[in-house]
Amino acid sequence: MIRFNCDYNEGAHPRILERLVETNFEQTAGYGEDPHCDRAKELILKDCGNPNADVYFLVGGTQTNLTVIASALRPHQGALSAESGHINVHESGAIEASGHKVLSLPSADGKLTAAQVEAAWRAHFEDETQIHMVQPKMVYISHPTEIGTLYTKDELTALSEVCRKRNLYLFMDGARMGYGLTAPGNDLTLEDIARLTDVFYIGGTKVGALFGEALVIVNDQLKVDFPYMIKQRGGLLAKGRLLGIQFETLFEDGLYYELGAHANKAATIIREACEQKGYKMFCASPTNQQFPILPNEMLKAFQDKYSYATWAKVDDDHTAVRFCTSWCTKLEDAEQLAKDILAF
Amino acid sequence: MIRFNCDYNEGAHPRILERLVETNFEQTAGYGEDPHCDRAKELILKDCGNPNADVYFLVGGTQTNLTVIASALRPHQGALSAESGHINVHESGAIEASGHKVLSLPSADGKLTAAQVEAAWRAHFEDETQIHMVQPKMVYISHPTEIGTLYTKDELTALSEVCRKRNLYLFMDGARMGYGLTAPGNDLTLEDIARLTDVFYIGGTKVGALFGEALVIVNDQLKVDFPYMIKQRGGLLAKGRLLGIQFETLFEDGLYYELGAHANKAATIIREACEQKGYKMFCASPTNQQFPILPNEMLKAFQDKYSYATWAKVDDDHTAVRFCTSWCTKLEDAEQLAKDILAF
Amino acid sequence: MIRFNCDYNEGAHPRILERLVETNFEQTAGYGEDPHCDRAKELILKDCGNPNADVYFLVGGTQTNLTVIASALRPHQGALSAESGHINVHESGAIEASGHKVLSLPSADGKLTAAQVEAAWRAHFEDETQIHMVQPKMVYISHPTEIGTLYTKDELTALSEVCRKRNLYLFMDGARMGYGLTAPGNDLTLEDIARLTDVFYIGGTKVGALFGEALVIVNDQLKVDFPYMIKQRGGLLAKGRLLGIQFETLFEDGLYYELGAHANKAATIIREACEQKGYKMFCASPTNQQFPILPNEMLKAFQDKYSYATWAKVDDDHTAVRFCTSWCTKLEDAEQLAKDILAF
Amino acid sequence: MIRFNCDYNEGAHPRILERLVETNFEQTAGYGEDPHCDRAKELILKDCGNPNADVYFLVGGTQTNLTVIASALRPHQGALSAESGHINVHESGAIEASGHKVLSLPSADGKLTAAQVEAAWRAHFEDETQIHMVQPKMVYISHPTEIGTLYTKDELTALSEVCRKRNLYLFMDGARMGYGLTAPGNDLTLEDIARLTDVFYIGGTKVGALFGEALVIVNDQLKVDFPYMIKQRGGLLAKGRLLGIQFETLFEDGLYYELGAHANKAATIIREACEQKGYKMFCASPTNQQFPILPNEMLKAFQDKYSYATWAKVDDDHTAVRFCTSWCTKLEDAEQLAKDILAF
Repeated sequence: MIRFNCDYNEGAHPRILERLVETNFEQTAGYGEDPHCDRAKELILKDCGNPNADVYFLVGGTQTNLTVIASALRPHQGALSAESGHINVHESGAIEASGHKVLSLPSADGKLTAAQVEAAWRAHFEDETQIHMVQPKMVYISHPTEIGTLYTKDELTALSEVCRKRNLYLFMDGARMGYGLTAPGNDLTLEDIARLTDVFYIGGTKVGALFGEALVIVNDQLKVDFPYMIKQRGGLLAKGRLLGIQFETLFEDGLYYELGAHANKAATIIREACEQKGYKMFCASPTNQQFPILPNEMLKAFQDKYSYATWAKVDDDHTAVRFCTSWCTKLEDAEQLAKDILAF
Repeated sequence: MIRFNCDYNEGAHPRILERLVETNFEQTAGYGEDPHCDRAKELILKDCGNPNADVYFLVGGTQTNLTVIASALRPHQGALSAESGHINVHESGAIEASGHKVLSLPSADGKLTAAQVEAAWRAHFEDETQIHMVQPKMVYISHPTEIGTLYTKDELTALSEVCRKRNLYLFMDGARMGYGLTAPGNDLTLEDIARLTDVFYIGGTKVGALFGEALVIVNDQLKVDFPYMIKQRGGLLAKGRLLGIQFETLFEDGLYYELGAHANKAATIIREACEQKGYKMFCASPTNQQFPILPNEMLKAFQDKYSYATWAKVDDDHTAVRFCTSWCTKLEDAEQLAKDILAF
Repeated sequence: MIRFNCDYNEGAHPRILERLVETNFEQTAGYGEDPHCDRAKELILKDCGNPNADVYFLVGGTQTNLTVIASALRPHQGALSAESGHINVHESGAIEASGHKVLSLPSADGKLTAAQVEAAWRAHFEDETQIHMVQPKMVYISHPTEIGTLYTKDELTALSEVCRKRNLYLFMDGARMGYGLTAPGNDLTLEDIARLTDVFYIGGTKVGALFGEALVIVNDQLKVDFPYMIKQRGGLLAKGRLLGIQFETLFEDGLYYELGAHANKAATIIREACEQKGYKMFCASPTNQQFPILPNEMLKAFQDKYSYATWAKVDDDHTAVRFCTSWCTKLEDAEQLAKDILAF
Repeated sequence: MIRFNCDYNEGAHPRILERLVETNFEQTAGYGEDPHCDRAKELILKDCGNPNADVYFLVGGTQTNLTVIASALRPHQGALSAESGHINVHESGAIEASGHKVLSLPSADGKLTAAQVEAAWRAHFEDETQIHMVQPKMVYISHPTEIGTLYTKDELTALSEVCRKRNLYLFMDGARMGYGLTAPGNDLTLEDIARLTDVFYIGGTKVGALFGEALVIVNDQLKVDFPYMIKQRGGLLAKGRLLGIQFETLFEDGLYYELGAHANKAATIIREACEQKGYKMFCASPTNQQFPILPNEMLKAFQDKYSYATWAKVDDDHTAVRFCTSWCTKLEDAEQLAKDILAF
């Protein structure tokens, strides 16, 4: 069986493991106060073009989302999110458990628009009974989104403008950032993102690390006392250097981007085969997740050879599925799948 | 500089790293649903002598404490803890952030007694105004405690009895369990602990793993829907197998206990030197943490050679300090320190 | 100006004030442990036909909702609610502040159907990734709903059945219960409601009292330690008798139902005038809230004479508004409004 | 039986009931946006000598405490309180339920000193591991305290200075404020309190009202969005005017102070009888609560005639009890008790 079901089936890029072995007996301070974390922060800030941002390393995405949101908001404030946003659907109520409502907005492509945000702001602040409702204070977006779509620089600029005008924090979840930054057609850089958002993170778990997310806090207001929050939410890794070593390896010579590009290349092979056969895509993703709408019979034929996620029933004979490539996908596996699709 | 300041200065036991390298390209399911986690659970349950307990692997201690307590208690209930308990002092309010009061009780040696628990229960349930106060529902203890002391089997049995009589959950934090189980004079086994408590964990972070705590849930009531809680609190590791592989390695042939015994041996070397010179101990720890009361002049002389934690000022000329050994301490380093103490 | 903007513009029915004056110097125990509360509970339980339910008196609706939900649910559980439900829109995130997600479902008429609840249950429990999502555990409904509509006995029976089958709590918010129970066409009694739900409340604030909601807990599981919850959430009135006296007065000889019927009568006068003129209703409410769609010109003409709430813009020339009658509305005021509508 | 067990045994001062009756059919806006609330605010601000403070009316003390603290603090921050403080003992964990630790400090007389606060601040901010601990950000005090003692102007000034120096909010719980302001020897005025604290409240429930606390927010930082918090915590009374009318009555011509002085006078009668007989007081309270240490035999003799609260067992033959007078205590009842004490 060849697994295309998700992007965290394997361990880490071998260079990361090598570095863990090499550094294993170094004695360092705990909790991220070590030279590896320091160097990883520097490397990341260099790519962000902002030496004044704060960088923290956390273990996972849900942990990062809940820690950022619980830290940023007062109790009566909520975060606007696409209905399909990870915080709205797949975090078991982590945000609500920290006391905050996720204010969901409809979205066909997993993205929010500046116009939606402006309308949501008005709907609240122009209503006389506003104190009876949750106050929108943050906009949560993902890049890529849950369905692999990307913001353009224009779209993100417009979102950023409305957020600054309306005094809303713009928070970008970048669990799959590496696949977004290197996707065909993407026009956003880390520098743009650091300029346009207030806080964002660069996902390691799904892009070559054993685990880990690098959180970048740009807005000074959001920096205050943040380390307390990491500890309080159970996210402060005793041997913080493990995170430093991984991000150091990913960012010292562009490995992070290489891995992203590799997965996108494998995904393109699969997408092109589908398109060649005339299969429609459930959504237009240029990144490592591909959502073709396939005949149920083909899926039946594939079921022992490939693993994938079932996404949505489209009609009686067709199902949208997700094929997920990763930093670790072998190109020959993608080619095999493409061949089988074409041959069906 | 030789570091005795804490027990998480280095990476992991080399066999753990070897296993991570060996298994790196295996494709497995995520979130702890993989064969390594399965095998690690089996090994642990065998040592616990209880095939029916549930085992979950979490990344860190604070995360484990807050997840267990938030899951076990209703909103009006709190956890009794020694004043010096980790949840009461060093978790940045993690328990309160989940809505629960830590009901602290005085303790000179870091332990709670059955009599204290009974008295606390009575103070609540025999008071007419009980509904105006937080209801005690859990007893939180550590083994070893924050200051390295241990419960005897008699003490733990008495605690267990009062908890069962009074319908209180008994929760044991075992962040340093390996050092406790192998300490000279310890008469508790994992089997005893699994029999006498409702829930406990076996710490990996401080005993040879890169990170990780193995939570064992014995009481059926506490098992219900626990995986949701791990996810909600941000503790569900995507590549859960990383935890499985580590605990598999620690428990397949007794490595965990070897590492514990090693650290205790190193600690004994240090303690004996102190005792030989007539220095008193701040508390009587048979485990990897030693708290001698030393002359300030000696500490001054040592400050560039050894790192340690300052614990308490005892008088104008003496300070209690903590020397911490670990699975990774070289015996010759402990012997060097002993020699320097004796020679001072 | 004649106020039809809401149903809490005045104080209380005069008999309530008389009773407060008469009893003012009685010395009683606090916190609801007084003879007036005892008697009010008895009277209510008699109407509910269930001597074994627990009754508690709270001051307001949001307080009651948040206290019930925070008490009933474990941290990973949420409450299903119509999108327009009070807890989803107009409680400033009170439910989320207690840690729980409101799982909103679409509803054109403010009601939930048994089929929706069953589908929501399946969507969760038949999904393999269920532990990543909030678990539905309660169904929150209002009777009357936010837009004045009512459940039929058949509908409530179906909801009750699915809740029992799926182990969900059924919670009915009865902030306007008096107007529902006495509405033309209503076929539900307090006895039915006590039989079909797990917990519900009978609103006083909007139906003749100065303030107060009578919470009836039918399900034994929900009774455990509930008084702690009231205290913890700030809802335990020191002079609890004030609530007892009010509900005693409302329930000792049917005053509660009289007041409900009176308001509905006034509302009918207004509705009939609208219908006679051919104005459509935004929703079909048989209770004290009426939502006619009126020409903007009429509204302009009325604006200094009547107060009302603007509900929704329907088209460029028409707006849905809410006229709210109450226990205190003078029939001649309703008739005046009807006359003006007819004359326009 | 004559009740001295608490200060909320009866309804309200008759002038308050009269005003409720007179105003009953006025139609006003809800939620505290009515002319009575406006006037009551003005009257209170005049007494506070600060026209710029914000005033809100809440129903009860626990509700007020939890709303203020939840609004003021970020998640990692806690409130310093005397061990005996109401928020630490008698609010069923309301503060923790909002996510915050109560940082308790020992106190023999129910008060905190400036030196204690400074020491607590240093203990946190001078500790390298501060981010592992709850950050003190507020100082919670009561005036009078739980045991009837009072702060002097010097003591409050010193507390205020350390709070401003260390950037801590000073919050005064004034549930029994009326009894404090009018006590013999008290040298604090509302004007002083408004100058020296950041936020405080003036209790109505225990001082002549049916219910209600007037919260005064002096510090601009604490004013932001406070109404949302009242709503979210279930404290926004629909018919807010009921609170306005009560405080209007209490503050328009000094009734509040009269009622306070009356209770203190009654308490003095009781205290003087005890002192004349040589009975010691458990604590030196000049306010409406008196805590004499009395022979158990006397208490046995009194048990059918007087109600009181048992406070503490002092020795085998003596018990400290609490006699509580109030705005409603008849002087002849206090004199009768005094006579019986003297005659025993």
